[in-house]
Amino acid sequence: MKFRLNIAIFGATGYTGIELIRLLKFHKKVDIKYLISKKNFNKKISDFYPALEFEKYSKLIKFSQVDWKDLDVIFLCLPTNESKKILKKIPKHVCIIDLSNDFRLNSFSSNKWIYGLADHWNDFYNSNKNTANISNPGCYATSILSPLIPLLKNNFIKKDDIVVDSKSGITGAGKQNVVENLFSEISQSIKPYKIANHKHLVELESCIAKFNKNKKFNISFTPHVIPINRGISSNIYVKLEKGINLKKINNYFKKNSFIFLKKLNSNKIPLIKDVVGTNYCFFNIFQDRIKNRLIIISVLDNLIKGAAGQAIHNMNLRFNFKEDEGLNFNPTHI
Amino acid sequence: MKFRLNIAIFGATGYTGIELIRLLKFHKKVDIKYLISKKNFNKKISDFYPALEFEKYSKLIKFSQVDWKDLDVIFLCLPTNESKKILKKIPKHVCIIDLSNDFRLNSFSSNKWIYGLADHWNDFYNSNKNTANISNPGCYATSILSPLIPLLKNNFIKKDDIVVDSKSGITGAGKQNVVENLFSEISQSIKPYKIANHKHLVELESCIAKFNKNKKFNISFTPHVIPINRGISSNIYVKLEKGINLKKINNYFKKNSFIFLKKLNSNKIPLIKDVVGTNYCFFNIFQDRIKNRLIIISVLDNLIKGAAGQAIHNMNLRFNFKEDEGLNFNPTHI
Amino acid sequence: MKFRLNIAIFGATGYTGIELIRLLKFHKKVDIKYLISKKNFNKKISDFYPALEFEKYSKLIKFSQVDWKDLDVIFLCLPTNESKKILKKIPKHVCIIDLSNDFRLNSFSSNKWIYGLADHWNDFYNSNKNTANISNPGCYATSILSPLIPLLKNNFIKKDDIVVDSKSGITGAGKQNVVENLFSEISQSIKPYKIANHKHLVELESCIAKFNKNKKFNISFTPHVIPINRGISSNIYVKLEKGINLKKINNYFKKNSFIFLKKLNSNKIPLIKDVVGTNYCFFNIFQDRIKNRLIIISVLDNLIKGAAGQAIHNMNLRFNFKEDEGLNFNPTHI
Amino acid sequence: MKFRLNIAIFGATGYTGIELIRLLKFHKKVDIKYLISKKNFNKKISDFYPALEFEKYSKLIKFSQVDWKDLDVIFLCLPTNESKKILKKIPKHVCIIDLSNDFRLNSFSSNKWIYGLADHWNDFYNSNKNTANISNPGCYATSILSPLIPLLKNNFIKKDDIVVDSKSGITGAGKQNVVENLFSEISQSIKPYKIANHKHLVELESCIAKFNKNKKFNISFTPHVIPINRGISSNIYVKLEKGINLKKINNYFKKNSFIFLKKLNSNKIPLIKDVVGTNYCFFNIFQDRIKNRLIIISVLDNLIKGAAGQAIHNMNLRFNFKEDEGLNFNPTHI
Repeated sequence: MKFRLNIAIFGATGYTGIELIRLLKFHKKVDIKYLISKKNFNKKISDFYPALEFEKYSKLIKFSQVDWKDLDVIFLCLPTNESKKILKKIPKHVCIIDLSNDFRLNSFSSNKWIYGLADHWNDFYNSNKNTANISNPGCYATSILSPLIPLLKNNFIKKDDIVVDSKSGITGAGKQNVVENLFSEISQSIKPYKIANHKHLVELESCIAKFNKNKKFNISFTPHVIPINRGISSNIYVKLEKGINLKKINNYFKKNSFIFLKKLNSNKIPLIKDVVGTNYCFFNIFQDRIKNRLIIISVLDNLIKGAAGQAIHNMNLRFNFKEDEGLNFNPTHI
Repeated sequence: MKFRLNIAIFGATGYTGIELIRLLKFHKKVDIKYLISKKNFNKKISDFYPALEFEKYSKLIKFSQVDWKDLDVIFLCLPTNESKKILKKIPKHVCIIDLSNDFRLNSFSSNKWIYGLADHWNDFYNSNKNTANISNPGCYATSILSPLIPLLKNNFIKKDDIVVDSKSGITGAGKQNVVENLFSEISQSIKPYKIANHKHLVELESCIAKFNKNKKFNISFTPHVIPINRGISSNIYVKLEKGINLKKINNYFKKNSFIFLKKLNSNKIPLIKDVVGTNYCFFNIFQDRIKNRLIIISVLDNLIKGAAGQAIHNMNLRFNFKEDEGLNFNPTHI
Repeated sequence: MKFRLNIAIFGATGYTGIELIRLLKFHKKVDIKYLISKKNFNKKISDFYPALEFEKYSKLIKFSQVDWKDLDVIFLCLPTNESKKILKKIPKHVCIIDLSNDFRLNSFSSNKWIYGLADHWNDFYNSNKNTANISNPGCYATSILSPLIPLLKNNFIKKDDIVVDSKSGITGAGKQNVVENLFSEISQSIKPYKIANHKHLVELESCIAKFNKNKKFNISFTPHVIPINRGISSNIYVKLEKGINLKKINNYFKKNSFIFLKKLNSNKIPLIKDVVGTNYCFFNIFQDRIKNRLIIISVLDNLIKGAAGQAIHNMNLRFNFKEDEGLNFNPTHI
Repeated sequence: MKFRLNIAIFGATGYTGIELIRLLKFHKKVDIKYLISKKNFNKKISDFYPALEFEKYSKLIKFSQVDWKDLDVIFLCLPTNESKKILKKIPKHVCIIDLSNDFRLNSFSSNKWIYGLADHWNDFYNSNKNTANISNPGCYATSILSPLIPLLKNNFIKKDDIVVDSKSGITGAGKQNVVENLFSEISQSIKPYKIANHKHLVELESCIAKFNKNKKFNISFTPHVIPINRGISSNIYVKLEKGINLKKINNYFKKNSFIFLKKLNSNKIPLIKDVVGTNYCFFNIFQDRIKNRLIIISVLDNLIKGAAGQAIHNMNLRFNFKEDEGLNFNPTHI
């Protein structure tokens, strides 16, 4: 492994692509070599993100212009199914970090892919860490699985009675020109969508199955768009197994790099603004008034912890960099 | 009963007070006689709501300046506990419509008060309609009970396994000068609050008890503030009783004046913007992927259907006016 | 002239089209006969505006399906250049009220068209009122000309030194699927656009020329999009002619139906929220600290006074209805 | 001068105070020693900014608890007139960087204070750089003076005909519990304020006088609050002196550290979102259609370039650190 990595970003002009550039510019082990855009090649990245006007990698190129010898790692920030299409054209020496959902399901059973839930890396790790590609989890899945995995692994909660109500900022929908995401449509409303039918469900459920003797089952999941730009806030309603209470649970949450349990059952309610601009996932667990019920609230920045930041975290783990290299920020708070 | 009613609004400068003035100005059976404000008397209502600059009732007065002989109905839009304090000073001939939660619990067992869930008036009705005062339900309770009551009455759902996740616009918190409701604090975030501890729970649970042989029990309820001004969107997660399915349910929803079931289990997702500016509650019921689970989504405008509009609806019912007199608007939609 | 008019709305699914339906539904002299949509015909208007689910005119039709015998008035809410294209296909007996800018310039010198600045109707009136079509002014122009015309007519201000800085809600851009109007792009920013180059300038300048012996000249105009849905707030910076002061000006503002001068030079600053949801234009004139300078602030709701409401006002004038028929609302205020 | 500075922040829980902590945490030459709060002492900074839960300086103290020997530099983020009150209690060895407007006017004529318009440091510099305190400019003034000073110094524009129309995010008003800044009041509106009467005018005009042979004069300035959290966008309307055109001007803008002229008169319109989260001021100058008029648009982040960032920039200059130490960020862009 070289001291520094040369990287490229595919789909550089989308929200996740720009977020990666923004963060990687200050990563000490990485040089940005190419920015690739199918739609906008020949334009400059500063047409989309004016702050980069004076960078040398500022010109957007197309796929065929990439000189693969230059590259160690590529980040794919492409629409659904686009990563799959180009997979065969990517040389083996290049480590792929894919931010779409194209390889997430494969990654649970493949030794070529790691499901990169970075703070639970060991739970999904495989034997070929040094050669594997990484499939970056979805933003909803990250917000839900981060607090849920320890509860599932230790059989603290009933696995067949989980209700999740998630609220996401609009950047989760990407930079698509659709009427339904216009300011005038999103402002002053909240939009539940894909009721009982969300694609992230498969990812969530496959993941949970790992901790249930590979027995799959359904969870109840309702995502919403709310009129904010960044952030996800997930409420997870669960039932305790017999004999389990909140005190027992506390000890099983070990300190992870970027996932924090706020003081358990306190009045510390995790808020999106406490994590926006950071790679953190904050959560807390509250005893409901109904005896055997818990309410878990989990928040993160969908573009960082839910996308670009976790991708960098995965790169850091994959290449044995300091775990928080390039990821140490305070929240913008307002 | 007189052809026209003389009315007064107490707490006229708050959001609900102004909303009442706005709506009552065009009500054909009502004359606004006095606007009362403890804090702002001697100022003009147009200092708070400039459109009313040229009205004759524009001067704000204090309680002691009211000439009760002039009045038939008063609307109390006061902070918690303030209605209770002034109750004894109000002459018997005046019908009180109270928008606070001071009398809601009483109203379930009193013959002096009606719990004014206007579209379910008959379920809460009492023998003294013509002399009773009206306690206007809370905005959360209205959004939750409107679709829930028919399901509870007919024993379609399990009463001890209800999870409610509600999202409210910030006007639900009133016009208080608190840092936590500043634009800078609310914008770009979502705030769950009073986890497992919300005062509206008692109202909800007492109401549900009526349909459960007066046996009380707890529901799981989590309210949120989202960065919008008006509107509540409530998700209600319920489990079906054995032998019940969605088809059976449909027939039991009769057409109410202001509550509409969208086409059952269709792709018609109720949105706040479809009802903002109106007295409607729209809801729909969706079959979850988990066989015995339903997801109910219910929306309304918290200042109209959840406050001022329902208060007027109650007045219309109490005085035998046309049910939708003064309440027939299209949503502002954007 | 018939007692009631049959009308149709072309471009019914855009923001202005829906606003017209919303308002005309309660207009006492009008029946909505057809809703026309090139793009969405065969769908239902309730797919775009769910409140209209139960109306009989709910099905969207295409141009060729219109039976012209049925119609007295049509409202054209079409993109630029589309009204021009269909003009010849419209029978003479039908009065056209066009909300685009296709005929605005013509209307200054034509006797077939009236430039419908409704509160200054007499200034633009022509001899053929009873047969003329109406070109509805732009929303920016309405906000600027409403306070400016009396100042120009009376030669109170210097005509060659006018600076206008206008801020508009995003619905002014219509319901187009463009990335630049996504919530994520508009929220948390302000966008000046078409610097020194705005198409509304021609309309403004042609109009001002009427009050300057038909001598045209340029004004400095900078429009902005701000992250709100409805409303325009225009600041107009002018210089007084010699010998003119604020006192002299006051008397020349006569009371119009929908344009109000707030108390001159007081602390009454016109705010968008004071007029949103209404057909009013509020403005005030302030003495600047620089002796010969005035600051004029003018606000209106771009979808009502700046579009649908003014179109109805023009219809009322054209057909001798009560001037404010169907237009008498209080602002939604929040 | 020591290699590292010990610093304290007074008024640590306000928006500017927290922003300073956020930025200084990663400044390589600085250790945060104390956080002072008159109102909130004994609480923890993480009660206001949860990300700092684990820092050692996390407890808020009061003024009397400061051990002055520990300190080299203090940042005063206090309400108007509070800095003045405590000035005498601060030992001489401590360098004060004051972010209020208490000392700004003094700073133009004092040798104890520098008016810290950091990118024009040399224009305001005085002989006692090594001992002077620093008065940090206002956010409006910074946005206006940054592009204006080179034009004034070179006599390119008419000094008595300047119109400024500025739009600011709500954090400019601080974290005060006032009804007028509630989300419900600010959202969906724009608020012009202190028409012809803004306190920043004196600062602006005194500064401009420096470049006008100390002759003071008035400019026309109208500030607005718009519904965003961070950012100022100022439009400056000026008239060219005879013989001056845009080409001549270009060369006089030398590259500053944090102020960038976008490509002159191009279609590059500076947007708040291009600088939010950074210490940059972006501006551009456009030729108006009126021959001798220019339109200047200038944007910055009011909490960084307009407050905390410029304060750090001033500290860097004062103590000969690298000019951009701790200030090198990319904009958050959404």
